Amino acid sequence: MSFDVTILGCGSASPTSYRNPSAQVIQVQDRSILIDCGEGTQVQIRKNKIRMQKISHILISHLHGDHYFGLVGLLSTFHLLGRDKELHIYAPSDLKEIIYTQLKTSKTYLKYPLHFHSLNFSEKSLIFDDKKIEIYSFPMRHSIEVCGFLVQEKIHPRKINRKAIDAFEVPTYKINSIKDGADFTTVDRQEVLNSKLTFDPNPSFSYAYCSDTSYFPALCDSILNASVLYHEATFGKELEKLAKQTKHSTAEQAALIAKEAKVGKLIIGHYSARYTDLNPLLCEAKEVFENTFLASDGMCFSLE
Amino acid sequence: MSFDVTILGCGSASPTSYRNPSAQVIQVQDRSILIDCGEGTQVQIRKNKIRMQKISHILISHLHGDHYFGLVGLLSTFHLLGRDKELHIYAPSDLKEIIYTQLKTSKTYLKYPLHFHSLNFSEKSLIFDDKKIEIYSFPMRHSIEVCGFLVQEKIHPRKINRKAIDAFEVPTYKINSIKDGADFTTVDRQEVLNSKLTFDPNPSFSYAYCSDTSYFPALCDSILNASVLYHEATFGKELEKLAKQTKHSTAEQAALIAKEAKVGKLIIGHYSARYTDLNPLLCEAKEVFENTFLASDGMCFSLE
Repeated sequence: MSFDVTILGCGSASPTSYRNPSAQVIQVQDRSILIDCGEGTQVQIRKNKIRMQKISHILISHLHGDHYFGLVGLLSTFHLLGRDKELHIYAPSDLKEIIYTQLKTSKTYLKYPLHFHSLNFSEKSLIFDDKKIEIYSFPMRHSIEVCGFLVQEKIHPRKINRKAIDAFEVPTYKINSIKDGADFTTVDRQEVLNSKLTFDPNPSFSYAYCSDTSYFPALCDSILNASVLYHEATFGKELEKLAKQTKHSTAEQAALIAKEAKVGKLIIGHYSARYTDLNPLLCEAKEVFENTFLASDGMCFSLE
Repeated sequence: MSFDVTILGCGSASPTSYRNPSAQVIQVQDRSILIDCGEGTQVQIRKNKIRMQKISHILISHLHGDHYFGLVGLLSTFHLLGRDKELHIYAPSDLKEIIYTQLKTSKTYLKYPLHFHSLNFSEKSLIFDDKKIEIYSFPMRHSIEVCGFLVQEKIHPRKINRKAIDAFEVPTYKINSIKDGADFTTVDRQEVLNSKLTFDPNPSFSYAYCSDTSYFPALCDSILNASVLYHEATFGKELEKLAKQTKHSTAEQAALIAKEAKVGKLIIGHYSARYTDLNPLLCEAKEVFENTFLASDGMCFSLE
């Protein structure tokens, strides 16, 4: 199973003709999660050939328009296309009224169950948990309440050593417990350690999303050792004062967070519309954290 | 002075990657008016190189999302770009709360004066009037309350016949009244008829916008003799039943309205996403009203 991220928009407050506002789709373990939903996200979903109705969870970091103005349109389109599968939204509590007021005004009565879950802005919280993945929200610092998100795979089952399984005549009904790490006793009472029956599992990956936030080292605890970190870099360090005033980060500060949190890879985005050439931001970040990449609209990458 | 229309979006409820939801800009007599504002309109404005801050009036026909979900984003962008010039919105009254709730949630306190004017859904009403243009709203029929709009130039001043003005020694301070049709008395008391001093004025044009509406012949009175009519043609006549159910029009019905209202030209749009080839819709309309054209995103035309 793959763990893919598609960046649908990496612009900031003012959408431009070349950069969409924040939105990205995480496809992990056959689950499809949308993080943020700026204006135009539904068209970006189509352009990037993401299967729209597969999206089961939408996480909205905060209620600045460039992170959610596309949501009500997407919800309406789900409805118009005949969706009946439930949808979960994790967002600041005020969003519920905003959405329902607009649906009510247009006399839209959704054909699918919509579940709102309010984010907790005071501490790291497990917001979703199933057999294969966990999603956490954690508070960051911005001009209004905001959460970052961490999507992580659970530890995969151990991989079966087919030859050993046959040699020790392990019955089929035991396989699942062995994948989970159990030892095995043969019919003639021989104890076989799990390590003889299995190989180490595939590694599990995790993806952290941090946008929007001022430089906030306290968030490192929440994303420690993440495989990939997407962190906003609205400005370059020449505008550090402006970053501080507007409660955003510079590319250098994003890299400092990546370094302190010991992540595997850093993707920077949420660039101010003033930057057309992004290389200065990339260079600035790379000086602190070499394994840095620039996000771009339509960029798709796998965690591996 | 020109009278130009730019179609920013001619799609219907579900935006696609090739067709944006409803929005168009009317540039008339140095005034810039936006009619409807579906999701993505601000990016379409940029792509079509419309001067965003010149827009002084926004008319919203009704509160289905494909006609207004781009509005709050546009208002926010005006603000972020430092607008201080006032803006007038003519819309169903519920829109005011929808907009202000979202601005309040994001702690956006607009730097420019925003004036809401509620539409009248019971009769044709003059909603704007200045020296050069008039704008009317008029009720149509749809699943929720909806208005069409008519933007019309006032009668232009008569054109000065420079040779005659010189020959009769008309003083400069009389020119404006002569442009308005006054006769002139020379110093030796000779009466000169206005028709000897002026030429007929340039013709005045008018543009009617009718979307969304079911087939509603009563609207013809409101748009009689319009130079150009934009009328929705969500479906072809093979789906006339569906058009009736959903309170939309077929291409043929749009043409019947054009014919009855004796307009100069018909532009059809607001196509259902099911149509990729629009020629059948065009042919269907042309059979009833020959001077019909297909709207497309980015299309710009002058009334002349």
